[in-house]
Amino acid sequence: MYKVTVVGSGNWGSVAAKLIASNTIKRSSFHDEVRMWVFEETLPSGEKLTDVINKTNENVKYLPGVKLGKNVVADPDLENAVKDANMLVFVTPHQFMEGICKRLAGKIRADAEGISLIKGMEVKKEGPSMISTLISRQLGINCSVLMGANIANEIAMENFSEATVGYRQNREAAERWVQLFTTPYFIVTAVQDVEGVELCGTLKNVVAIAAGFVDGLEMGNNTKAAIMRLGLKEMIAFSKLLFPSVTDSTFFESCGVADLITTCMGGRNRKVAEAYAKYGGKRSFDELEANMLNGQKLQGVLTAKEVCEVLTHRGWLEMFPLFRTVHAISTGRLPPSAIVEFSNEKSRYSLLKAWGGRSSICC
Amino acid sequence: MYKVTVVGSGNWGSVAAKLIASNTIKRSSFHDEVRMWVFEETLPSGEKLTDVINKTNENVKYLPGVKLGKNVVADPDLENAVKDANMLVFVTPHQFMEGICKRLAGKIRADAEGISLIKGMEVKKEGPSMISTLISRQLGINCSVLMGANIANEIAMENFSEATVGYRQNREAAERWVQLFTTPYFIVTAVQDVEGVELCGTLKNVVAIAAGFVDGLEMGNNTKAAIMRLGLKEMIAFSKLLFPSVTDSTFFESCGVADLITTCMGGRNRKVAEAYAKYGGKRSFDELEANMLNGQKLQGVLTAKEVCEVLTHRGWLEMFPLFRTVHAISTGRLPPSAIVEFSNEKSRYSLLKAWGGRSSICC
Repeated sequence: MYKVTVVGSGNWGSVAAKLIASNTIKRSSFHDEVRMWVFEETLPSGEKLTDVINKTNENVKYLPGVKLGKNVVADPDLENAVKDANMLVFVTPHQFMEGICKRLAGKIRADAEGISLIKGMEVKKEGPSMISTLISRQLGINCSVLMGANIANEIAMENFSEATVGYRQNREAAERWVQLFTTPYFIVTAVQDVEGVELCGTLKNVVAIAAGFVDGLEMGNNTKAAIMRLGLKEMIAFSKLLFPSVTDSTFFESCGVADLITTCMGGRNRKVAEAYAKYGGKRSFDELEANMLNGQKLQGVLTAKEVCEVLTHRGWLEMFPLFRTVHAISTGRLPPSAIVEFSNEKSRYSLLKAWGGRSSICC
Repeated sequence: MYKVTVVGSGNWGSVAAKLIASNTIKRSSFHDEVRMWVFEETLPSGEKLTDVINKTNENVKYLPGVKLGKNVVADPDLENAVKDANMLVFVTPHQFMEGICKRLAGKIRADAEGISLIKGMEVKKEGPSMISTLISRQLGINCSVLMGANIANEIAMENFSEATVGYRQNREAAERWVQLFTTPYFIVTAVQDVEGVELCGTLKNVVAIAAGFVDGLEMGNNTKAAIMRLGLKEMIAFSKLLFPSVTDSTFFESCGVADLITTCMGGRNRKVAEAYAKYGGKRSFDELEANMLNGQKLQGVLTAKEVCEVLTHRGWLEMFPLFRTVHAISTGRLPPSAIVEFSNEKSRYSLLKAWGGRSSICC
């Protein structure tokens, strides 16, 4: 019998708990109860968030109006939440994962398997590290990932969508994750390419920034589609350079082309980048983020910076004009219109010259 | 010296002539003059369309407000227009090509090369035939194709976009086509996969119908992205079954994923399908086409029918749930909501049962 804990309880974490809870109650290989670790907060009413979730069966703060399933139990105590689980679902903001892993090391079951729903990567001096690798290393467990065209609120409404599980070697564990997440309206497919799937989820946000610039410049559908395609090509090339095991076919899965489409059509990265281009770069991303996102940081801007650190370090800058142009625009060193100029031979030359004039091109 | 004639002068044909004319005048390997065959019409003013084009340098009927280049010469006489050319650009509605080929057989230069910008295919008893194959066979010339995310009016405005040339064997001829079309705002790439490129341009319209249904049902971005992805997968699978030489990488080119995105975001196939789903299938495609498109026929609906004829004939129906569901919905045999149900196991079963109850499933 498998016992599941969801580590995280934001918008996506709550939807994940709902999906999972609908399956554990139906399938005999899982314990009914799904424990969900909740970072405790006191609500304006004075009540604790966990108490309200357990009383109303609803995450009133991050997924109001949606019942999670009676078998979801909110737990404010991280160690207690994970201690009995052998299937750990990680779905927190990516900057919290390192701290969470430190707290969990040595406190989880020896037979536990992990899956990460977290988008983003850590770039350190020694190179980029994927979140699944961080979890794997710090907790000593096998860690898969689940990514896809997954706007949480749309899944909460039970509209049809798809997702991709990326796994390293353990096909059986991957099948178990597929069973845990699949519902009639949420179709999950497993591919043996954990890095490819995880990089899709990370890099698409950089492309969404580029797509947002095109929207802000009002350049139309052809241009936006071209930029998305060029972005996809750079996602594939970057992933394969970093991890030669990554396969092209992964990018045809939900985590690839479908998530890219969703993110470049809706999504906050696209939206803020659109505003940035509309203001001609005169209002900084920091300012726009503060106004439009309640101070939350855009993942695409951070990821573009991290990707460019990798490109600089490895000498790959020239191979990724879109990624580095996104970074240069978002840091105010090129105008938004540069996003459609990099692929034109003449402009590319001026761009390279402009780049060359800076001592630190990317970071 | 290469001499170019554009056979066709609609919206896309006029833009193609403009792109080409800007290059022939600059590059010494081409004759400056670009001849454009125009199906003669008398304008409301009483003037002939060709006279007005040659006087104003503008196709006032199909691309008003855009100068084509002074070296574009409109010619109402098909045989005269092609007789000196050794580069023939075909860009007419696809149903006219067979008649045009019959008229041109034996009347063109022996060293002519062709390129088709026409989307669609002919399905006959003996199997499907691509337009480039029709041209090749009937005229006895080599024929490449050019496809991509190419909304004509956006290219006329010189917004950045891309296209793909698909060629069979003659790499040199392909390079010449690339030179003829490429401008600083229109980037063309050649791939040796004429069938793959041409099928992209044809099949995307079927997926756009599916995407339009999702829009009409207001199911959100996840669902639309999922349907586009499933459509892309069927495009690839269908192309590879028909022509084993087709390669996956073609679908990452502009003709593939980029054109699919453009067509599923804008485009008349998407728009009419959206209206069809909004009315719950109660107003037929024929009626909506008449109201929304001035009686013009939607390519996606015709192509879905043609594709299903091929699927039925070859016994491949079960492998293409999206294609055949689009056909079944557009002919009123399934409700629009079926578009998101085919991939759910239970519904698929009912769908198959429903299909099974009909003697003629597809055509």
